[in-house]
Amino acid sequence: MSVIGSGSEHEAVAAEVGRLLAQRGCVVITGGLDEVMSWALRGAREAGGTTIAILPGESRAAASPWADHVVVTGIGHARNLAVAASGDAVIAVGGSWGTLAEIGFAMRLGRPVVVLEGGPEVAGVRRAATPADAVELALAGLDR
Amino acid sequence: MSVIGSGSEHEAVAAEVGRLLAQRGCVVITGGLDEVMSWALRGAREAGGTTIAILPGESRAAASPWADHVVVTGIGHARNLAVAASGDAVIAVGGSWGTLAEIGFAMRLGRPVVVLEGGPEVAGVRRAATPADAVELALAGLDR
Amino acid sequence: MSVIGSGSEHEAVAAEVGRLLAQRGCVVITGGLDEVMSWALRGAREAGGTTIAILPGESRAAASPWADHVVVTGIGHARNLAVAASGDAVIAVGGSWGTLAEIGFAMRLGRPVVVLEGGPEVAGVRRAATPADAVELALAGLDR
Amino acid sequence: MSVIGSGSEHEAVAAEVGRLLAQRGCVVITGGLDEVMSWALRGAREAGGTTIAILPGESRAAASPWADHVVVTGIGHARNLAVAASGDAVIAVGGSWGTLAEIGFAMRLGRPVVVLEGGPEVAGVRRAATPADAVELALAGLDR
Repeated sequence: MSVIGSGSEHEAVAAEVGRLLAQRGCVVITGGLDEVMSWALRGAREAGGTTIAILPGESRAAASPWADHVVVTGIGHARNLAVAASGDAVIAVGGSWGTLAEIGFAMRLGRPVVVLEGGPEVAGVRRAATPADAVELALAGLDR
Repeated sequence: MSVIGSGSEHEAVAAEVGRLLAQRGCVVITGGLDEVMSWALRGAREAGGTTIAILPGESRAAASPWADHVVVTGIGHARNLAVAASGDAVIAVGGSWGTLAEIGFAMRLGRPVVVLEGGPEVAGVRRAATPADAVELALAGLDR
Repeated sequence: MSVIGSGSEHEAVAAEVGRLLAQRGCVVITGGLDEVMSWALRGAREAGGTTIAILPGESRAAASPWADHVVVTGIGHARNLAVAASGDAVIAVGGSWGTLAEIGFAMRLGRPVVVLEGGPEVAGVRRAATPADAVELALAGLDR
Repeated sequence: MSVIGSGSEHEAVAAEVGRLLAQRGCVVITGGLDEVMSWALRGAREAGGTTIAILPGESRAAASPWADHVVVTGIGHARNLAVAASGDAVIAVGGSWGTLAEIGFAMRLGRPVVVLEGGPEVAGVRRAATPADAVELALAGLDR
C-alpha cells in the first residue's frame, strides 16, 4: 500500500495511517523522504510492519531512517510514478503538487486512491475523514 | 510551450491553441500521440510553426504525423514529466488523469499552467475561457 | 546487493549468487522478471534471505514468484538505472545489452561492479571466476 | 541521429560528426550538455542543420547554446535511454560509463550503433576509424 503526501502538519496522521496499514498486514511504501513520507513509514514500523522507500535521487543517504528497504531510482520526480504504481492502493495525506501527480498516475493505472481530508481536492477521487476510514476504503478498493 | 490534455471532443480547441502559439512564435510540444496531443501539433504546423512530440514508448512509429521532431523516451507515463518540464509554460485542453499528473509536475517545477475550461479543475491553477485567453495568460506567465 | 544479467544457461549460477548473498546477510535486488533475475531471487529466498524485484512495467503480475517485495516502476528499460542504483554493489551473471546498460549506470554512480565469467567483457570492470569470488569481491568493494 | 560520448579531447571529432550528419540531412540529437554533446550540436548547426538537446535535469538552463530545441526530461541518467531511443541510429565519440549505458540501450532497442575509435570497446558493436566512416556506417544501418 502506498502512502503519498507532504506537509509537517500531517505527520501525526501519516503515522496513524502507517500504523493501521501495518496492523492490517500491509507493506507500506512511500517516496521515502521526510514529513508524511517518513512518518507513514515510522507508524508502520512501530506497529511491526515492513516499509519501503522509493527515492528520487541517486543515493540512499536521503532515505528516512524508518525504511526497511530503500529503492534508489535516480529519476527525480518521475519516481512518483513508481510510488503510485507500486501500491495496490494509494492513500494521500496532505500533499501538494507532487502528490497531485501521484494521484493522477495512480488513477491512470487503475489503483484505488483515497484522499484524507486536508489533501488535494480532486473530482472523482474518494475522500475519507479519518485514517481508519481511509485504510478501510483503500482495502475495500482492493476487493473489487 | 507545452500543450497537454486528451479527449476527441477537444481536438478543435487544441488545434486553435496550437495555431495561436505558432503565430506567437512558440514551438509547440506535446505528448505526441493522438487527440489533443496531435491536434495541437497540427494547428501549430498549419500555421507555420515548429512542433515536437515527446513519446512514452520505444518507437517513433506512434508519433502524430504533425510532429516535426520526435523524442522517444521509452519511459511510459513518466514521459509526462518531460512534457511538463520542457515547456516554458503549459496549457491544458481537456484531459484526464495523465493530464492531472502533468499539471502536478508543471506546478511543482514552477512552470506557469493555464487550464482551458473543460479541463481538470485544480485549486490554485489558472483557468481560461478561450484559446486566445489561454495563450495570453501562458505568455504573460513567462514574463513574470 | 543487486544481481543483474540474463540467459537461461546462467540460472544455476544466479541462484548460487543469490544464496551466497543471503548467507552474508544481503538483501537481493534484481529486475524481477525471469531467468537470472528470478533465479537470483530464488537462491536468496531458499537460503532465508529477503528479495526485491524492480519491474519495468505497470503491473506486479510480471514479477518473479521469488520476490518478497515488488516495486512497479512503469518506466521500461529506464528501470535498469534503479536496479543499478539500488544495490550497494552489483554482480552481473551472464547478460546482454540491458546488462551492459546497468553496468554503465552502476559504474557511473560509483557502485562496485563484479562481472562473473560469461558476462559482458567491459574494460575497467572487475571479473570473478566463481559465485563465491564474485560475492567476496562485491562485499570487499563496499568496505573501501 | 543521436551522437553520444564525452571527453574534451573528442570535441573536434564530435563537431565533424555533427557537420557530416547535417550535410546528409540528419537532425542531430545529443544529451545536450557540454563536451561531445555540445560540439556535435555545434558542428551540425554551423553546417546548417537542426539540433536537439535531451537534458537530464529540470531546467533548460544547462543546455548547450547550440541546441535549436531543448527537451527537459527531469529523469537524470535515465535520459540516456531517451537519447539512445530517439536516434534512428547512434554514433559514439569518446565516452565513458554513461556512454556505455547508452550503447547498451541502443543495441537493446535495435538502433544501429557505430563507435568511433577512441570510444568504448564493446564486443558486437561496429567501429569506425573516421567521422566520415562512422556517418556512412550509421546511415547504411538505417537502410537495412
